Amino acid sequence: MPEHISKQFDTELESVRSRVLQMGGLVEQQIVTAMEGLATGDMDLIHKAISDDHRVNAYDVEIDDACQHIIARRQPAASDLRMVMTMIKTTTDLERIGDEAEKIARMSKMIYESDRVNLPRFHEVRHMADLALEMLRKALDAFARLDLTAAAQVVRADLQVDEEYRAIIRQLITFMMEDPRTISISLEILSIAKALERIGDHAKNMSEYVVFMVKGKDVRHTSVEEVEREALQ
Amino acid sequence: MPEHISKQFDTELESVRSRVLQMGGLVEQQIVTAMEGLATGDMDLIHKAISDDHRVNAYDVEIDDACQHIIARRQPAASDLRMVMTMIKTTTDLERIGDEAEKIARMSKMIYESDRVNLPRFHEVRHMADLALEMLRKALDAFARLDLTAAAQVVRADLQVDEEYRAIIRQLITFMMEDPRTISISLEILSIAKALERIGDHAKNMSEYVVFMVKGKDVRHTSVEEVEREALQ
Repeated sequence: MPEHISKQFDTELESVRSRVLQMGGLVEQQIVTAMEGLATGDMDLIHKAISDDHRVNAYDVEIDDACQHIIARRQPAASDLRMVMTMIKTTTDLERIGDEAEKIARMSKMIYESDRVNLPRFHEVRHMADLALEMLRKALDAFARLDLTAAAQVVRADLQVDEEYRAIIRQLITFMMEDPRTISISLEILSIAKALERIGDHAKNMSEYVVFMVKGKDVRHTSVEEVEREALQ
Repeated sequence: MPEHISKQFDTELESVRSRVLQMGGLVEQQIVTAMEGLATGDMDLIHKAISDDHRVNAYDVEIDDACQHIIARRQPAASDLRMVMTMIKTTTDLERIGDEAEKIARMSKMIYESDRVNLPRFHEVRHMADLALEMLRKALDAFARLDLTAAAQVVRADLQVDEEYRAIIRQLITFMMEDPRTISISLEILSIAKALERIGDHAKNMSEYVVFMVKGKDVRHTSVEEVEREALQ
């Protein structure tokens, strides 16, 4: 490839890469807004987190389209192609994280519209949200800097989020048994915890793509130890 | 492209396409096995549905790799590129359907290991499973035959699955309130219903890719009516 074309190509790739990061920032903010809406019952925040989903979807369509144009016109190979593939897959996961953030906001809306202001295990759910957000930030960072150490940390952190989710289920079961009138609100909180657990899963997927991008090895269906070995060696 | 190369290329595409359909058949069978395990408590079936997930994952890695090789070596454009993209995305959804089938089997295992043989709303959950399976079969058919009518039907059917899921939640809430000792089993049944609801979502995604492949238009974030208009006109 002549140098000026190769430069053009780099600029194109770089531009899509920065769109992916912008989309990531938007999704991150959407989760923060949804959780703030849950904490406060502020309907403006709740509606904002719901309507943000349209913007997330627009990024999804735009980035996907840009990646396909790059493949068709530039015919990338090797690490460039892996980068394009990683962006396509990362975008899919970011879009689904956006769906989960929207679900949290919709659930919050339902909770406050039915006057159930006492939220069981809210403290634990907020802690789960902090962990999931930390995973997402680190996954975006790993993508931005091709940082395999960060990627491996995200994959490991997913175990903790899953464990906290199981703990919340156990606590909510006890709570519901003690007072069956809390069943509806407990199920709503459970859905929110489930959404956060899935956000963790998506952040983990994103980190596995980073390992694939850098190492050329698909580590998606392997153990945490295997991912760490591949990422850190 | 000289004719013999173009023929080779068609053969390659066709071979990956048939692997995607095989993977779809495996995933379909995995759901049937998991639901049969849930109905009967047969641990052989339950373990089979769990271990099938490794085979599903192997297909995922293999097809993804084959698609990237095609892009790198064949540099497909236009509808060929859309076909490759569709296969990559379809495979991701099939893999996640496999994860949901595995979850149903793991939940069934938990249910039978704790001797809770009375399954609330089992009839309704089985009906949901039938609907989700029908969606998956039709989505695979739409992919195999580029059948836009079938694709549009799947997108519409997802509304019904979502509605049945909401009905099951309502019924389980009533059931738990009447007898709080049923809370654990009800939550297990709820997770299974949730897994089926997600299988419906994935089948819907797959059908939207078929519309994209045939029409070149991304209908993922539009309404059912918009998908139908695009697919059927």
